[in-house]
Amino acid sequence: LASFIKKINFKRLKENRLNRAPIATVGMIGGGSWATALVKILSENKVKVKWWLRNAEAVKHLRRHRHNPDYLSSVQHSRRYVKPTNQLKDVLKDTSHLIIAVPAAFVKSALIGLKKEDFEDKIIVSAVKGIIPEEHLLVSEWLSNKFDISEQRMAVIAGPCHAEEVASEKQSYLTISAPDLEVAEHFAHLLRRPYLKASLNNDLYGVEYAAVIKNIIALAGGIARGLNYGDNFQAVLVANATDEIARFLDEICPHPRNLNESVYLGDLLVTAYSQFSRNRTFGSMIGRGYTVQSAQVEMNMVAEGYYAVKGIYEINRKYQVSMPINKAVYKILYENSPPALEISILKDLLK
Amino acid sequence: LASFIKKINFKRLKENRLNRAPIATVGMIGGGSWATALVKILSENKVKVKWWLRNAEAVKHLRRHRHNPDYLSSVQHSRRYVKPTNQLKDVLKDTSHLIIAVPAAFVKSALIGLKKEDFEDKIIVSAVKGIIPEEHLLVSEWLSNKFDISEQRMAVIAGPCHAEEVASEKQSYLTISAPDLEVAEHFAHLLRRPYLKASLNNDLYGVEYAAVIKNIIALAGGIARGLNYGDNFQAVLVANATDEIARFLDEICPHPRNLNESVYLGDLLVTAYSQFSRNRTFGSMIGRGYTVQSAQVEMNMVAEGYYAVKGIYEINRKYQVSMPINKAVYKILYENSPPALEISILKDLLK
Repeated sequence: LASFIKKINFKRLKENRLNRAPIATVGMIGGGSWATALVKILSENKVKVKWWLRNAEAVKHLRRHRHNPDYLSSVQHSRRYVKPTNQLKDVLKDTSHLIIAVPAAFVKSALIGLKKEDFEDKIIVSAVKGIIPEEHLLVSEWLSNKFDISEQRMAVIAGPCHAEEVASEKQSYLTISAPDLEVAEHFAHLLRRPYLKASLNNDLYGVEYAAVIKNIIALAGGIARGLNYGDNFQAVLVANATDEIARFLDEICPHPRNLNESVYLGDLLVTAYSQFSRNRTFGSMIGRGYTVQSAQVEMNMVAEGYYAVKGIYEINRKYQVSMPINKAVYKILYENSPPALEISILKDLLK
Repeated sequence: LASFIKKINFKRLKENRLNRAPIATVGMIGGGSWATALVKILSENKVKVKWWLRNAEAVKHLRRHRHNPDYLSSVQHSRRYVKPTNQLKDVLKDTSHLIIAVPAAFVKSALIGLKKEDFEDKIIVSAVKGIIPEEHLLVSEWLSNKFDISEQRMAVIAGPCHAEEVASEKQSYLTISAPDLEVAEHFAHLLRRPYLKASLNNDLYGVEYAAVIKNIIALAGGIARGLNYGDNFQAVLVANATDEIARFLDEICPHPRNLNESVYLGDLLVTAYSQFSRNRTFGSMIGRGYTVQSAQVEMNMVAEGYYAVKGIYEINRKYQVSMPINKAVYKILYENSPPALEISILKDLLK
C-alpha cells in the first residue's frame, strides 16, 4: 500500500482536477437528436451543460444511465459536465449561453412562463430552423421581440450537419452566425472538435431563412420522388432552388453573402439529398397519394417543412418574390391541389 | 375488298407519308448509353440519324432487332429514322449536324482518318465531357483546332441528364451551349420532347469545363465515401466545389454566367449524388484501398474523372488557381499519395 501511495503523483492529480474544471456553463433546452449531439460536443470540450428535457423519464434515464433513451442513444454523456433536469429554472441559473433546440412549432410552449429577465446577460443561441407558427417570424426574431433580447446577444447554429454523423464523429462542419462576430467566435470555440469545424458568419437572418427554406425544398423533392420523378429532375429542382433562395433573401434581408458557402448550399444539399430526412419522407408520402393528415399519423411526427412552407408563403405575400417551388408545395399542402398537377406546372417553370 | 378500299383515305395516307419525312438528317458517332439516348430523342422528333458504332456486331444487332445490345437495350429504335452503320463515311454524307458522343479518351482514335473537309458546312456538336489526353484541350477546342472548325459552328450538349432516365422518359433538362445562339436554338429544337426541356447558353468553354470538373468532384466524393466520410462531409465537399469551379472558370474563360443554373450546378449534383456514377464508384474503390490499376481492372472501364483530373491539373499549372479538391485527387491518382492523408488535408481546407 505504501509503495502504491508513493506512486501517486499528487501534483498531477491536482492539475487533473483543475483540467477538468468546466470552461463555461451553458443551458440547453430540448431533448431531440440535435440537442443531444450538441450536448455531446460541448461536454467533450469541458463545457458544463445544464440540460432541460421535457420528458421526465428521459431525465431520470439520463441521470442513471448517462444516455438519452430517445435519441442518439449510443452517446454516453459525461457525469461531470452534463446535468439533465426537467426544471426550466435550472438551465437559466449561472449559464452564460442559452441554447434553444426544440422544433419551431414547440418553441412557444417550451418557453412558456419565462420572462425577459430570464434572458438577461446571456447569449441566446438558436439551434432551431423554422418559422414560429402564426407569428410568421424566424425563431431568432420572435425570441428577440418577445424577450427583448438585443440582436448583439443572438446567435444561430447552422450548417450541413446530421446529428447522427456528429454522434459517430464523422467529419462535420458548422457555422455560427451572429451579428456580433465576437459572440460567434466565442461560441464556435466551445464547439470545435477534431471532427467538427465551426466557421463564422454575420448574416443571421439570411442563414436562418435559408435553413428554413431548405426543408421546403427537401419536401418538394420528396413529393417529386413520390410521383416517380427521377434524379435528373431532382438535380434541376435543387439548382433552381438556389436561385429561388437567392431571390427571396435579396428581397427580405439583403446582405453581402456567397450562397455557395456550406452554411447555405451545403445545408440545402445535406437535407435535399438525405435518405433520412423527415421532410423528404413526408413529401414522398404526399406524392404517393397520402393526405397530409394520414402522412402525419403514419410518420408519428410533423415535418418542419410543413410549417415552413406556410410561414414563408405568408411572409412572401408582402414581397411577392417569385418562388415557384414554395408555391407548388403550399398549394399541395394547404389548398388541396393535386401533387401531380402542381409538380407538372413546376416542371415547366424550372429550367 | 371494294368497301375496304373505299375506306382508305388516300389524302390522309399521303399526309402521313409527308408527316413522316425526316425534318433533318444528322450523324451520330458513338455507341454508348448517351449516344443511344440521343438517338432515341432525335428519332422520336423525326430526325434521321446516321449512327456510327464501332462495334460491328452491335450494328448488325441494331439493324435486325432495332435495339442496342450493349446500352439502354430496352429502347426500340425506329427503322425509318435510325440508320446504324460502322462506316464512318456514311455519317458524314448529307448530314447537317455531326454529334460526337464517344469518351474523350477515344475521340482521337474514333475520328482517325477524317480530314477538315469532312467537317465542312456542318454543325459539330460535342456530347462528350472531357479533356483530350495529352493535348490538355477540351473536346470542342481540339476539334476546332484539328479540323479547322469555326467556333460559330460548334455546340455542346450538357445538363443534368442520366441517359437511363431519358430512356425511361423521366422529366429531364438539357442545355445546348454554342457561341452562336441560333445554332444552339436550331439544335435544341431537334431535341425537345414532352419529357425533355432544352435551354440555351453561349458559354461553350465554361459549360464544358464545368462538366469535366464535376466528374473529378464525383470521384473525390467517392474517395471520401470509401474512407467512410459521411453525408455532412459530402455536402461540404460539393458546396466548396462550386467555389473551386467558379475560381477556375473566372480565370480560364471569364464570361458572365450564373453557376447555379442547371447546366452547371444541376449537372454537378446529378453526378456527385448519383449512386451509379462510374467516377464515384471508381473513387470509392480508391478510398477503400484499391490501386488505380486494380480498380480499373475490377470495373472493366475507365472513369472519365481519371483523365479529367490530370487534364485540369496540367491546364491549371499555368494559371495556379487554388483547386484543393482537384489537387487532392491528382496526388492520390498520379502521385501515389495515400487517400486518407490527402482527404484529411482536404478536410482542413474545406469550410
